[in-house]
Amino acid sequence: MTMDPFGKIAIIGLGLIGSSIAHAARRGILAREIVGFDASADVRTRAATLGFCDAVAEDSGSAVADAELVVLCVPVGACGPVAQAIAPYLKTGAILSDVGSVKCAVIRDMAPHVPAGVHFIPAHPIAGTEFSGPEAGFASLFDNRWAILTPLPGADPGAVARLKGFWQGLGSQVDAMDATHHDLVLAITSHLPHLIAYNIVGTAHDLETVTEGEVIKYSAGGFRDFTRIAASDPTMWRDVFLNNKDAVMEVLGRFNEDLAVLQRAIRNGDGDKLYEFFTRTRAIRRAIIDMGQESAAPNFGRDQN
Amino acid sequence: MTMDPFGKIAIIGLGLIGSSIAHAARRGILAREIVGFDASADVRTRAATLGFCDAVAEDSGSAVADAELVVLCVPVGACGPVAQAIAPYLKTGAILSDVGSVKCAVIRDMAPHVPAGVHFIPAHPIAGTEFSGPEAGFASLFDNRWAILTPLPGADPGAVARLKGFWQGLGSQVDAMDATHHDLVLAITSHLPHLIAYNIVGTAHDLETVTEGEVIKYSAGGFRDFTRIAASDPTMWRDVFLNNKDAVMEVLGRFNEDLAVLQRAIRNGDGDKLYEFFTRTRAIRRAIIDMGQESAAPNFGRDQN
Repeated sequence: MTMDPFGKIAIIGLGLIGSSIAHAARRGILAREIVGFDASADVRTRAATLGFCDAVAEDSGSAVADAELVVLCVPVGACGPVAQAIAPYLKTGAILSDVGSVKCAVIRDMAPHVPAGVHFIPAHPIAGTEFSGPEAGFASLFDNRWAILTPLPGADPGAVARLKGFWQGLGSQVDAMDATHHDLVLAITSHLPHLIAYNIVGTAHDLETVTEGEVIKYSAGGFRDFTRIAASDPTMWRDVFLNNKDAVMEVLGRFNEDLAVLQRAIRNGDGDKLYEFFTRTRAIRRAIIDMGQESAAPNFGRDQN
Repeated sequence: MTMDPFGKIAIIGLGLIGSSIAHAARRGILAREIVGFDASADVRTRAATLGFCDAVAEDSGSAVADAELVVLCVPVGACGPVAQAIAPYLKTGAILSDVGSVKCAVIRDMAPHVPAGVHFIPAHPIAGTEFSGPEAGFASLFDNRWAILTPLPGADPGAVARLKGFWQGLGSQVDAMDATHHDLVLAITSHLPHLIAYNIVGTAHDLETVTEGEVIKYSAGGFRDFTRIAASDPTMWRDVFLNNKDAVMEVLGRFNEDLAVLQRAIRNGDGDKLYEFFTRTRAIRRAIIDMGQESAAPNFGRDQN
């Protein structure tokens, strides 16, 4: 499926996601002009050298001026201030979107600043790597991953369809749901996994009885899997947990309850309960592989030798 | 480094690890004859068809008769009964070893059955995949991974050196430590990660407010990483937790304490504490990659599109 390209699009924030959108938009010929901006002068310089945008603007206002699509690719906590800063420069009829991992807080923070005549349609691509910065982006990041739109009640159907076409052009499959449900779904599929991964890496780091050298050497027993997402961008993840507190607390409560049951089964030597628990978790991985969201190769197909 | 090959070696248990030892021993010309046995007639038939052993015996006694090295590749809970069954057939001077993920319990269960003149040297290769069974094995599984020997006090140095040479021949780096320390090290690097992974997959499975279809579709946000080790063999892992209770309880207690601190930081909106916590976990992954125990490629180098 092809879409009419946008005229100018503006990408605010040129890290992993912003730079990947630029690469993929160029690959898909989704815009006639791609202009980028980043709050960091150093990132702007690196992005200009990398050349994935047609131009890197020196301020956010000139980046978004005349843009038909503006995508904020900044940490969730920065979305409100950035929306406020760019609001006077947005063109009437433009689509304003974002890529934040939390949607209710982004809507709360951005919506008050959106001028009349601008179509604000929040979005979230479920894609990424553990790397950060403008050098980390690549054109295929969104291929076959899901992007979720959370349009507000009364959103313009034509603008929603246009943004959907853009994400499809980037390679994604696209779903829509309300922001509250999005935040709960992502709390279990993304936010809790990151919290748990950060936590176990921290626990291993702090043990006095096992050295860090031992943890590192023998990490192939399972620990190393957790270090990948625990290497993700700290600012992004701080903002996620500050802005999706209720949903994270809910799924974390369930996780703790379930862990207490497993802990008791171990304490009591209840082999039948452990076996039953460890058996039913295989089917989910198979389904994820069948959905094209995971590699079927052993050890993720790693080549580390 | 090359070693004089063993004469006959016997591999008891022909799943992922046993079949991989056979493949790697053949590759390295580490034995003149490789005889396998498995308690399951079906596995024996499949192993014979696959052909990674020179012969598949119909009973454990004839498998180990005249063998210079016998390696038990069975779940930890089966090590005692298997040792008892094969004891009368072990050749004087033979090395008896295992590959169990827990060492104190294996020593407790096996040592009473070891005949005088047989060298019992427990071992544990820190290597594996999420797949099980004789079809899952491959020759390079142990390449550049660590194998830990836990010789008992007074173990024969020549026999220990011979087993070390065997594991080096299989591709491993080899360390030695006492069994108690091994069990604590593995509790944090392997057993707790598996418990947490099984648990979070179970929590996601049981949530009423998010469908399993949603968990599967949006798993690329982090959740899918956990499903790999949660797809591991349930019998093996039941036995690990039944047999390393104290060490697992200790590291699980620390994990829970640390998680309570993170939970409180989220509840209180303490962004500085979250940022600090999320920052210090990156260095461990870098060290694991530098040690050759992990892929440096984004997303483990997965190719799932």
